[in-house]
Amino acid sequence: MTTNKIRVAIVGMGKIAVDQHVPSIAGNPDYVLTAVVSSRDPAMPGVAWHKTLQSLLDDGPAIDAVALCTPPQVRYELASLALSRGVHVFLEKPPGATLAEVGLLEAQATKSGATLFAGWHSRFAAGVAPARAWLADRRVDSVSIVWREDVRHWHPGQAWIWEPGGLGVFDPGINALSIATHMLPDPFFLTAATLSTPANRAAPIAADLTFRDSRGAPVTMDLDWRQTGPQSWDIVVETDAGTLSLAKGGAVLTLPSGVEQHDDEEYPGLYARFATLIRAGESEVDVTPLKLVADAFLRGTRVAVENFDD
Amino acid sequence: MTTNKIRVAIVGMGKIAVDQHVPSIAGNPDYVLTAVVSSRDPAMPGVAWHKTLQSLLDDGPAIDAVALCTPPQVRYELASLALSRGVHVFLEKPPGATLAEVGLLEAQATKSGATLFAGWHSRFAAGVAPARAWLADRRVDSVSIVWREDVRHWHPGQAWIWEPGGLGVFDPGINALSIATHMLPDPFFLTAATLSTPANRAAPIAADLTFRDSRGAPVTMDLDWRQTGPQSWDIVVETDAGTLSLAKGGAVLTLPSGVEQHDDEEYPGLYARFATLIRAGESEVDVTPLKLVADAFLRGTRVAVENFDD
Repeated sequence: MTTNKIRVAIVGMGKIAVDQHVPSIAGNPDYVLTAVVSSRDPAMPGVAWHKTLQSLLDDGPAIDAVALCTPPQVRYELASLALSRGVHVFLEKPPGATLAEVGLLEAQATKSGATLFAGWHSRFAAGVAPARAWLADRRVDSVSIVWREDVRHWHPGQAWIWEPGGLGVFDPGINALSIATHMLPDPFFLTAATLSTPANRAAPIAADLTFRDSRGAPVTMDLDWRQTGPQSWDIVVETDAGTLSLAKGGAVLTLPSGVEQHDDEEYPGLYARFATLIRAGESEVDVTPLKLVADAFLRGTRVAVENFDD
Repeated sequence: MTTNKIRVAIVGMGKIAVDQHVPSIAGNPDYVLTAVVSSRDPAMPGVAWHKTLQSLLDDGPAIDAVALCTPPQVRYELASLALSRGVHVFLEKPPGATLAEVGLLEAQATKSGATLFAGWHSRFAAGVAPARAWLADRRVDSVSIVWREDVRHWHPGQAWIWEPGGLGVFDPGINALSIATHMLPDPFFLTAATLSTPANRAAPIAADLTFRDSRGAPVTMDLDWRQTGPQSWDIVVETDAGTLSLAKGGAVLTLPSGVEQHDDEEYPGLYARFATLIRAGESEVDVTPLKLVADAFLRGTRVAVENFDD
């Protein structure tokens, strides 16, 4: 591979693209933002605008990679089209609306030689790598995950998140699972779940989950989208060497020896990883967090709760 | 490996164990039914009876293998216990209540050297192997799966099937998926689903599903547990070489050249396969059918339908 800049296009200019992808690409000398696919012209100087990925690939400037920031329900078609042209693909989380489609994309990437990267941004939170290293030698006795936020603040008017194929409260919850599945030394599986779904919505607004790891330690998870006031994104791990606490979505790590706090580097970390994979000609697709969510939908008890309107 | 008889224990003496497992073991000279684990004494001459698998493994006659015929919700513990003692495990379908737990069992089997076999009985229906061979060279244009049966007849009073972790109408439906995923030349993924669930139950009584294969051909699936009168277990595949039809759950294959009908050999086929795997020191765990069901629960639209009582 050369070390030419990677010409990347963003597909889907929603909140996450504007807030995170654009500045992360601008801040990384490995990339140049070449094009945007969006229903409206973002009016970015020097950046081509196309209404569809098909149009960009057929008539636009040459690109090496796409970052797919659309809702998951439509991501398969876009990813498959890009891979069929040998274009590298960065999938926002969750990587798809189903497990099977991600498996098909993975096979297609292998066949095409293009890179497929299923990004989990929370795994790049500052505290996660040191937490993982610290836990590697420990015996885990229990894990508590509490992820409570205000959906009106974080997902204002995002209807897709409540539709079938959107994940409801598992949209933030899958971030916690992406950290836990990466950080904990043993794999874990679901043993019970209760999913609370507003009577007027298709997706849950809250969930209580119980997992167990392969050595028998309990992992509990409390998800709620109705939290006003202080927000909670905390994982606490009790071990034979004391308590590890990861707060603020992975940014603040507290070990028995003290507190470590670092700047947020989630999306810059994702783009650095994507460049490394492209240069190495490799893919990285870990569906474990989505598998655990699918298991919760498969095995969970559903209860109806009061209507949600925003 | 020696060619000594495989000493097998059946765990869970429900309808499927009595109807299928006992006669299939009796009819296969590779096996001897050594023990049964059940809450009630089945009073089978020469067969040990234990109330729990733990008790059988601790105090009973030596066994080489177990066939787990319990509901899926409790199967993980039993399988994990058996594998920890180096005992081979045959999992009835579905292989577990979640995808993650089956993954953990697979890893445990690899580590222990024991055989783990996730059996899909419908794949051993007489028409499936010839259908698969015929389809291997064909272009599939569309697939229609219709699986409609009377739950009162086939699952009388089986409460577990309606509980979270039971699959509702996907309990038979997963048989169709086990055939389709084995028989069709290309993998497929879910694009839309509607799950109809009685207001007083946790699991769906009917479902309409749309899949698409990796070459774009549509695969539709119509599941219904409210069918009285004639029952339907049919898969019709339109190809560039004409129509393939598989009826009666896989027993009757119709090709453009004519009809093939054979005796039912599903469970004898499963036990022959299990013996082959044990003698070869291998495992066989294909979770694709369960993954497609999990995807349907994850992505499907739910509609409430009238109460079901039996």
